[in-house]
Amino acid sequence: MTDSSEAQILRRIGKLIEAVRAADLESVMSSYAPDVVTFDIVAPLRKIGADGKRENWKSVFATYQLPLGYEIRDVKIAVSGDVAFAYSLNRVSGTLRNGSHIGQWLRWTACFRKIGVDWRIVHDHVSVPTDFATGRALLGLAP
Amino acid sequence: MTDSSEAQILRRIGKLIEAVRAADLESVMSSYAPDVVTFDIVAPLRKIGADGKRENWKSVFATYQLPLGYEIRDVKIAVSGDVAFAYSLNRVSGTLRNGSHIGQWLRWTACFRKIGVDWRIVHDHVSVPTDFATGRALLGLAP
Repeated sequence: MTDSSEAQILRRIGKLIEAVRAADLESVMSSYAPDVVTFDIVAPLRKIGADGKRENWKSVFATYQLPLGYEIRDVKIAVSGDVAFAYSLNRVSGTLRNGSHIGQWLRWTACFRKIGVDWRIVHDHVSVPTDFATGRALLGLAP
Repeated sequence: MTDSSEAQILRRIGKLIEAVRAADLESVMSSYAPDVVTFDIVAPLRKIGADGKRENWKSVFATYQLPLGYEIRDVKIAVSGDVAFAYSLNRVSGTLRNGSHIGQWLRWTACFRKIGVDWRIVHDHVSVPTDFATGRALLGLAP
């Protein structure tokens, strides 16, 4: 049961990664619950509901030339019953519409609930660390 | 069973908040599993193990005059069996050793496992959003 749920969540994450690379907004959004609460890499502090998450992904897909590079490293998953969490270091890379090349490592935490037969992300958190001495977001770190 | 676990986690979080306000490092550390993986507000991207988390809290407690203000808002908890997650917006406030007053809202996600009879944080993620246009960490946002 636990192994099978872990495999389901791994497949869910794999599908999300593929959808991000393809900039397939509908497929990306199928990973999230309607009431997902996101602590995203961009402001505000918190967005409540899938529409907010959709806006953020649309903005990402509008910023990059396609396809987008999206790599996920050291994913860890814990699951019990209908609750699970996963976290990993994710690298987003590609060429911006303005021509500059970007490659950034982000920390990603995703919290899941099983809704019907399907695991959905009900909360996620995406960030880089802060340098308090300068007030800068540390966008150049690597694992 | 689920209600009781949720109550246990709420008490665990309450104890952590009290310990942070008192800058009681040992009590703070009792919330974490030995192998906790933290995506903390400061670099690096990831620290593995409670020693890393301890260093970070020591550094916080050395930066502020005591007691420290620590407020937690809109905490949401999901739990099933021996796995749980919680997230909230947390405000850290106080007077730095250098005399300046600080009040910052942080996003906090904590993932738990029940180890023996005790819930411990096995993964946490603390951050503010990034302003990509300026490269700055958005330390002045409020919910």
